[in-house]
Amino acid sequence: MATAEQKLQDLKTRLLEISDLNHINALLGWDQSTYMPPGGAEARGRQSALLAQMAQEKFVDKEIGGLLEDLRSYEESLPYESDDASLIRVTRREYERAIKVPPKFIGELNEHGARSYQLWSEARPANDFSKVRDGLEKTLELSRQLAEFFPGYEHIADPLIDFADYGMKASSVRALFAELREKLVPIVRAITSQTPVDHSALHKHYPEADQLSFGEEVVRQLGYDFSRGRIDKTPHPFMTKFSLGDVRITTRVREDDLGDCLFSNMHEAGHAMYEQGIDMSYEGTPLGGGTSAGVHESQSRLWENIVGRSRGFWEFMYPKLQAHFPGQLKDVPLDTFYRAINHVEKSLIRTDADEVTYNLHVMMRFDFELQMLEGTLSIRDLPEAWHERFEHDFGIVPPDDKDGVLQDVHWYAGIIGGAFQGYTLGNILSAQFYDAALKAHPSIPDEMNQGKFGPLHGWLRENLYRHGSKFTAPEIIERATGSALTIEPYIHYLQTKYGELYTL
Amino acid sequence: MATAEQKLQDLKTRLLEISDLNHINALLGWDQSTYMPPGGAEARGRQSALLAQMAQEKFVDKEIGGLLEDLRSYEESLPYESDDASLIRVTRREYERAIKVPPKFIGELNEHGARSYQLWSEARPANDFSKVRDGLEKTLELSRQLAEFFPGYEHIADPLIDFADYGMKASSVRALFAELREKLVPIVRAITSQTPVDHSALHKHYPEADQLSFGEEVVRQLGYDFSRGRIDKTPHPFMTKFSLGDVRITTRVREDDLGDCLFSNMHEAGHAMYEQGIDMSYEGTPLGGGTSAGVHESQSRLWENIVGRSRGFWEFMYPKLQAHFPGQLKDVPLDTFYRAINHVEKSLIRTDADEVTYNLHVMMRFDFELQMLEGTLSIRDLPEAWHERFEHDFGIVPPDDKDGVLQDVHWYAGIIGGAFQGYTLGNILSAQFYDAALKAHPSIPDEMNQGKFGPLHGWLRENLYRHGSKFTAPEIIERATGSALTIEPYIHYLQTKYGELYTL
Repeated sequence: MATAEQKLQDLKTRLLEISDLNHINALLGWDQSTYMPPGGAEARGRQSALLAQMAQEKFVDKEIGGLLEDLRSYEESLPYESDDASLIRVTRREYERAIKVPPKFIGELNEHGARSYQLWSEARPANDFSKVRDGLEKTLELSRQLAEFFPGYEHIADPLIDFADYGMKASSVRALFAELREKLVPIVRAITSQTPVDHSALHKHYPEADQLSFGEEVVRQLGYDFSRGRIDKTPHPFMTKFSLGDVRITTRVREDDLGDCLFSNMHEAGHAMYEQGIDMSYEGTPLGGGTSAGVHESQSRLWENIVGRSRGFWEFMYPKLQAHFPGQLKDVPLDTFYRAINHVEKSLIRTDADEVTYNLHVMMRFDFELQMLEGTLSIRDLPEAWHERFEHDFGIVPPDDKDGVLQDVHWYAGIIGGAFQGYTLGNILSAQFYDAALKAHPSIPDEMNQGKFGPLHGWLRENLYRHGSKFTAPEIIERATGSALTIEPYIHYLQTKYGELYTL
Repeated sequence: MATAEQKLQDLKTRLLEISDLNHINALLGWDQSTYMPPGGAEARGRQSALLAQMAQEKFVDKEIGGLLEDLRSYEESLPYESDDASLIRVTRREYERAIKVPPKFIGELNEHGARSYQLWSEARPANDFSKVRDGLEKTLELSRQLAEFFPGYEHIADPLIDFADYGMKASSVRALFAELREKLVPIVRAITSQTPVDHSALHKHYPEADQLSFGEEVVRQLGYDFSRGRIDKTPHPFMTKFSLGDVRITTRVREDDLGDCLFSNMHEAGHAMYEQGIDMSYEGTPLGGGTSAGVHESQSRLWENIVGRSRGFWEFMYPKLQAHFPGQLKDVPLDTFYRAINHVEKSLIRTDADEVTYNLHVMMRFDFELQMLEGTLSIRDLPEAWHERFEHDFGIVPPDDKDGVLQDVHWYAGIIGGAFQGYTLGNILSAQFYDAALKAHPSIPDEMNQGKFGPLHGWLRENLYRHGSKFTAPEIIERATGSALTIEPYIHYLQTKYGELYTL
């Protein structure tokens, strides 16, 4: 008769293999986005599907269910916060979710996702929504089926939201977003009625190689560990991970836009620093990753915006940037630069949006997801609905679908439902976490002005990063900040920061 | 009752998964050599071992043995050359070899190889053979054990030689090498007694970026397909493959040596063009790769040396090279350049050796492998034996072990036995294949002088590349050239080429 320790070891061995297969699959994806020649695509799709299937089969194995059952009394004998109890608890939660979905359905979903992504990558440049329409109908149908595997929901989107942001559901997100919108809309209205800020300093010619070298320097300063990471170029920046010792980011460069590479780097480095900060002993277990989409995004946004677009940060960094680009910036004062990187403007593209208007993009997509899942908005009517809603929220009519309903990959490569709320949850949480760090270390701003990011990074590591997925999002928010999710710090942050830049 | 067609389909499905797992593992290796940060090493080793083990387990599955047995009469009903018969035949050969080796032993071998490689990568820069000695003892012991799984051999090295170069054994390689040595030594002696050629033109300063762009252009001209490949930098150049649609090469650059990147590229592109030329329908089967180490090397050497160091090639390409490096080469006549890239000199390092002395390096290693396996040369005595033999064959005493017995990775990352003969078999075969191509298309040299490599490439594709591993090395040599392996064309090639450059 095996002891609990032996059974736990057996479980860990199985989980490590599954984690390794998933991490290997991530490498396949990274290579596909960075360096793979076009001829590699066909086999790569097949190879990636094979790994996904193997990992899934190994995870839903009844043996894992048996081990989890056998380990229940051991788990109950341990404190909730112990690593072993947490490992068993979190694995059980994921296992119980995984076994509800038939492997055949997962295969169909993945296969459809690959085909649908391919169609989207042709449809977007061609500005042709009709190319993706049938695929999107099927995606919606599959998304509904997926939700149906988790009966007992209040709203059909709830299970899908729960995948990404455990503990949230349509009603709670909707309430939160309504509260936020009420505060946000007056700020947007106030700012956009004022004279636009001159941001031409960002749109001189900035050679790619110089942007890349400065962008690397910046994230090194923030604390991104290059001995366990690297930066490559991709059309869309992302973070990916092949082990806790290899957490990579990607970036892109526009030579007529100094901000693109720079803020992409800080954003992705924020995600990466979260992963790099996880307790190394969680490697290969369900504890060894960030805990939710919203909490993950809070770290990218914290480093990109709260740090990276702050005046204090640039008081330290701007002289270095000027030295890097003397021809372009030596006559541009810090204040002009600071206003340029924080200028607020209603614009078409979510990923290019400023801090203030960004959430309006998210809320619109979130509402559409609910309506599509409910059946109150058909795929056929989606482009027109997009135009109307965009005009209503932004006062601009999108000139086409390319920069309208086709702009984000999410619906075309995954499911409809739960894909977007994490971005705004991240914005809200970035301020809540930063606020808590400030309370613990009031000297953080002064230290950042001197290029010292260690105190902030250290607090985040101690209170958030190292725990990985040991705690759920609601648990870690409460533990780290002393309260449940709240929009107060975020609203206060926006009002204070933008109140100095504009008349609010 | 399943039909033969259904069983064949079942077999192919299984083989495709195994091939995909191995190709995925190759990507892990490529990434490790090109871009992986140091922090990724530990997990990468584990992930690679996992994939190797999974592929091995799936291949030695009794179900595969059963399918092969059931397919015997179907195979016999088909012509020997048919794709289906060949697939069954070659799979059976590999299967019968694979099941003789216990999975546990494979695991031990791989694990030891990884550890031993690690030790070597520290020992070589430190010039410290003692660091690898114990590991190498173990490698020798494992190599002997591996051979013992294939009883009935004439020489204990035979099974190991057979892995790499099917159809060859110690006695046949030894006889071939003796014959070659007899012709080669007088040529080496004659050349090295003459005034050394001035090759200083190659050792000016050649900036890395310019070497890389020219090196890419050269292999594109030869016929390497960049839509199914790419070039990256590594300390040691190699070719690797993730599918027939993704066959990559790597190169290295020394800014004080124009030849390194250039000829590395042509060499690796030769390997890659072989793989890129394989019939796409062989993807995912044991037919979908080159047929032996020697035949593979014949293609790297053919493109690197017979084409890439020929006068005709440079009559076309040298003006382009001069235009690329005007400061360095505009006053260097073609003849001076041609002599420089073909200068013969006794030197310490195999991979840097010229065409004439190269084989002496190989023969020495081959003899040592036989002696170590026989037990007539101990690991302890190896460094000293290296010094003595090197002095005997080259008239130079190696100043250290770093550029002596530690210079090649083979024994430190794999097995002892069968590792080296393929290089010289490749040299011999490169001339034999080229000769056959010339007989079919006498205009090939004239076409190459005009930058047209299509006729040569086409002949190779038709007669060699497309067949992959359908035929064994002896079979494809006979089919493509009309005779068994022979050194005549190679000796004739060396005597003619070097007879024009030196007094022989």
